[in-house]
Amino acid sequence: MKIICNQKLLAHKIGITQKAINSKTTLDLLKGILLSAKDDQLKLTGYDLEIGIETYTQAEVIEEGDIVVNARLFGDIIRKLPDSFVEIESDSENNIYINCLNSRFKIKGDSAKEYPRLPEVNDNDLYNIPQDLLKNMIKQTVFAISQDQTKPILMGELLEINDGNISLVAIDGYRLAVRSCNVENIRNNTKLIIPGKTLNDVNSLLSSEEEVKIGFDDKNAIFIIEDTKIITRLLEGEFIDYKKLLPREHNSRVKLNTKDLLNSIERASLLSQSEKNNLIKLSIRDNTMAITSNTDRGNVYEEISLELEGDYLDIAFNSRYFLEGLKNIDSEEIFIEFTTNINPCIIKPADGVKYTYLLLPVRISSNI
Amino acid sequence: MKIICNQKLLAHKIGITQKAINSKTTLDLLKGILLSAKDDQLKLTGYDLEIGIETYTQAEVIEEGDIVVNARLFGDIIRKLPDSFVEIESDSENNIYINCLNSRFKIKGDSAKEYPRLPEVNDNDLYNIPQDLLKNMIKQTVFAISQDQTKPILMGELLEINDGNISLVAIDGYRLAVRSCNVENIRNNTKLIIPGKTLNDVNSLLSSEEEVKIGFDDKNAIFIIEDTKIITRLLEGEFIDYKKLLPREHNSRVKLNTKDLLNSIERASLLSQSEKNNLIKLSIRDNTMAITSNTDRGNVYEEISLELEGDYLDIAFNSRYFLEGLKNIDSEEIFIEFTTNINPCIIKPADGVKYTYLLLPVRISSNI
Repeated sequence: MKIICNQKLLAHKIGITQKAINSKTTLDLLKGILLSAKDDQLKLTGYDLEIGIETYTQAEVIEEGDIVVNARLFGDIIRKLPDSFVEIESDSENNIYINCLNSRFKIKGDSAKEYPRLPEVNDNDLYNIPQDLLKNMIKQTVFAISQDQTKPILMGELLEINDGNISLVAIDGYRLAVRSCNVENIRNNTKLIIPGKTLNDVNSLLSSEEEVKIGFDDKNAIFIIEDTKIITRLLEGEFIDYKKLLPREHNSRVKLNTKDLLNSIERASLLSQSEKNNLIKLSIRDNTMAITSNTDRGNVYEEISLELEGDYLDIAFNSRYFLEGLKNIDSEEIFIEFTTNINPCIIKPADGVKYTYLLLPVRISSNI
Repeated sequence: MKIICNQKLLAHKIGITQKAINSKTTLDLLKGILLSAKDDQLKLTGYDLEIGIETYTQAEVIEEGDIVVNARLFGDIIRKLPDSFVEIESDSENNIYINCLNSRFKIKGDSAKEYPRLPEVNDNDLYNIPQDLLKNMIKQTVFAISQDQTKPILMGELLEINDGNISLVAIDGYRLAVRSCNVENIRNNTKLIIPGKTLNDVNSLLSSEEEVKIGFDDKNAIFIIEDTKIITRLLEGEFIDYKKLLPREHNSRVKLNTKDLLNSIERASLLSQSEKNNLIKLSIRDNTMAITSNTDRGNVYEEISLELEGDYLDIAFNSRYFLEGLKNIDSEEIFIEFTTNINPCIIKPADGVKYTYLLLPVRISSNI
């Protein structure tokens, strides 16, 4: 293999490919990027056997070929080279020569023959979503994915296509986040479970208002963002029937300013931060909500104004879970719907975005 | 005590005071900030028994008094409050009440009676240095302080006042950094050893072109930056006679571009990063220097142009120590003076700044 390409563009593409490389793998070959030079392009592939990324950079291909190069070392070298043209050449003993102006590297590569093949996903039947919309959908749900390795299904998100909607759903046993959007030309209803890591990787590659293309089969899904393909294994199993968890009715509904509530809960949680459940108590009355916390270190009283429809209520929450939901809502105002102080509440943006954040309360004695 | 003050200004002053607080101390009182309200001012004091910081913020003092409040909790609360006026009040049981708009905190404080007194340093006899100059002097030397707890003296810097000059000197056994400047009205020659932590704290408070005032006695030094005083215990003992370590003559002297050399050494050190001594080799010839490194992972050859006076030379260094020196030189070009490949070399900026960075080579076999 022998190519000449642009340093800046190559460095950028290495950064993308590295997202699919697990530096903790014990297989040396999987610590590498597969470089494949053909047809005026250099293809870069990273693969950790769960997620694979393929991307391209323009190159002058002097000699076609493939070689595997340690991703971290190759990335470090290319990023430190001057902004100029880089010549990369491999020989029959898998040595790799990198030349750029007055810099000459010779490093050891690996044969491409043993490099595992990425699964093929049918990419003829694809859905289009604007990148910024998908980015928002992932951001508003991915933080609610379970970190509990004994429930691997919940370490992914449900992607549900149903009646013209695409929804992303995350549940961790304490809260549930659902974000939906309309997508044109939806043909079949379906359900997939996508690993959380894949969604974080996809999210980090979404940056423009262009469209991202999504496709899938029984075992795998593919995300195509410009000239980058992300192929991921799907999680197998049955996701929780989340719709059964959403309350059908409510006894109290409040409308309040998102930022005011966020700031008040942040302050109220300062005293309980060192404790296990970050307990804060909300007391909802006619025009105000009092947020209080009482710990060994002292106590705090916060008050914010609201519009109430329905009953007064005293209810307690883990402030961390409450804050994580609020931080991911862009709407200036929100609705919160409560039934009783032992049932989950639901937070929704007031701006009409299809987002639902369900949160379990913490049980406390009734005389708070 | 009862005061009203501005949230933003108070938060800023708490941040300054916290630099003198060691959160790992086992003495609860020293985790606190001493608040003293008097004469339209709130004084904030932090002290870890080595370094003390006193600073002030304007306040409406409704009732004079003193109280100690946990620095981290107090800082977290004040920083999270809205940009408005904050009322702070303490009662006879050392409870502290913090009120700001719709937020009310009650936290436990400590009596100020047991709070240790900071040493008094005569601040009538002070030297003035521009803040940006002192900042530069600290930046160019402090990284060369020893981290070796068995040599406590070398965990500080020598501050030497001699013949109209102030110098800062740091040594760690592998390299030596000296930065000097002229100061007007110098009365007495003297030598002090200032703890490295103090210099880092002082450095973080230097931000303008105003002057900083420096004073000292046998046991302590004081730095006055606007309305903030930093009082530090001096290290006791004899500093190494660093002037004896500086070579008097050289056999080779090269002049080269600082940034080019820095970039080349950074690249050359990528292959040796995982090894113990980060070895790079320099080969100095008529118009070029070759920088090479040869490890299990591969090898690298870098070439940069230079102007040579004197002999050819092959010499090896720990690249980390070389880079740390180069990164702190602002001059576009530098001189490097060598005697032999087993003697220290000296790096100096070509722009006339009084800075000397001495670096020990690594011994290698002669036929590199």
